[in-house]
Amino acid sequence: MELSKRQQQIIEIVKTGGPITGEHIAEKLELTRATLRPDLAILTMSGFLEARPRVGYFYSGKSKNKLMSDQLRQYVVKDYMSPPVVVKEDMTVYDAICTIFLEDAGTLFIINDNNDFIGVCSRKDLLRASMIGEDIHTMPISVNMSRMPNLTYLTEDELVIYAADQMIEKEVDSIPIIRKKENDKFQVIGRISKTTITKVFVSLFKE
Amino acid sequence: MELSKRQQQIIEIVKTGGPITGEHIAEKLELTRATLRPDLAILTMSGFLEARPRVGYFYSGKSKNKLMSDQLRQYVVKDYMSPPVVVKEDMTVYDAICTIFLEDAGTLFIINDNNDFIGVCSRKDLLRASMIGEDIHTMPISVNMSRMPNLTYLTEDELVIYAADQMIEKEVDSIPIIRKKENDKFQVIGRISKTTITKVFVSLFKE
Repeated sequence: MELSKRQQQIIEIVKTGGPITGEHIAEKLELTRATLRPDLAILTMSGFLEARPRVGYFYSGKSKNKLMSDQLRQYVVKDYMSPPVVVKEDMTVYDAICTIFLEDAGTLFIINDNNDFIGVCSRKDLLRASMIGEDIHTMPISVNMSRMPNLTYLTEDELVIYAADQMIEKEVDSIPIIRKKENDKFQVIGRISKTTITKVFVSLFKE
Repeated sequence: MELSKRQQQIIEIVKTGGPITGEHIAEKLELTRATLRPDLAILTMSGFLEARPRVGYFYSGKSKNKLMSDQLRQYVVKDYMSPPVVVKEDMTVYDAICTIFLEDAGTLFIINDNNDFIGVCSRKDLLRASMIGEDIHTMPISVNMSRMPNLTYLTEDELVIYAADQMIEKEVDSIPIIRKKENDKFQVIGRISKTTITKVFVSLFKE
């Protein structure tokens, strides 16, 4: 959306002098209120300006990307998460690597015998384990995992954009989506990964 | 950007009866041309409708996300690529895994003695190598890489959105950005990864 020169002037006037009525904006531009009406309609509809009865127009502080961020707010984790790849804590590193290939997963989510979610194990954790030189056929995956609650997790009602932000900030490739169980333990019900984000990004363009 | 009921009616009229003049749209809605002016201005500015002199309004076939896709078209690979992590083809798998950790990389790009780009090696390739059971201290990385030209690569003038699309379609986590050398070989000058895409996605919201 390209703004006209006059629309940019209006934004400047409201930015520096707002709140300000439509009549006063028109005066400053030496135009009639009627002439400005389409411009003001566009600027308020697109979120650049806000209008309040008996107060006037004021600058919303929102950039060109307000539309973008409104759109992004519609993406909620529960609509985009994938099924988690879940394994037991006593699985060997070797079997965990096999599972990574069989399930084409980046990260494994680990549970105990009560099906409580207790940790995550990434490809990097498995690589580290396999280079230490111990026998990957006997070493259990639980030795190499990051443990709850010292890891990043989210609930299904969070925004996808927040999940993306957390993956960058915490430097992880995937985030487990959890639900609290009655016993105060957690159940893992999904995952959001950088692949999920890449798919959403592509869909923004293709939709 | 939420369209009003009247704006949606106008889009319907133009969709089914376009090209159509502003006067004819006004007639159909039993309104004056002046009343419609702000609506038509909004609809053309935001890309829903196009207007041609002496022809009238017609439906652009563009969805609500036109603005979004226009925005995404501004992201070009050369402005967003990261430096590639480049290693020689005779590096051992063990040293390659160490490099993955030292450089915090997901994928290594492999060159020969002439600095020609000859292949890529992912974390998954290294995991596969380390589970085969051969000695990772002597096995060279070149045994485990995907070789040029049988892999996905892009040049720096492509769109970031296209790189994202290719990562999903080809199921890779990272794409080498290459430049053709005078001898018809390739130089690797950067990488775009799902991490890059996740960062761009977050920046769409934060900007």
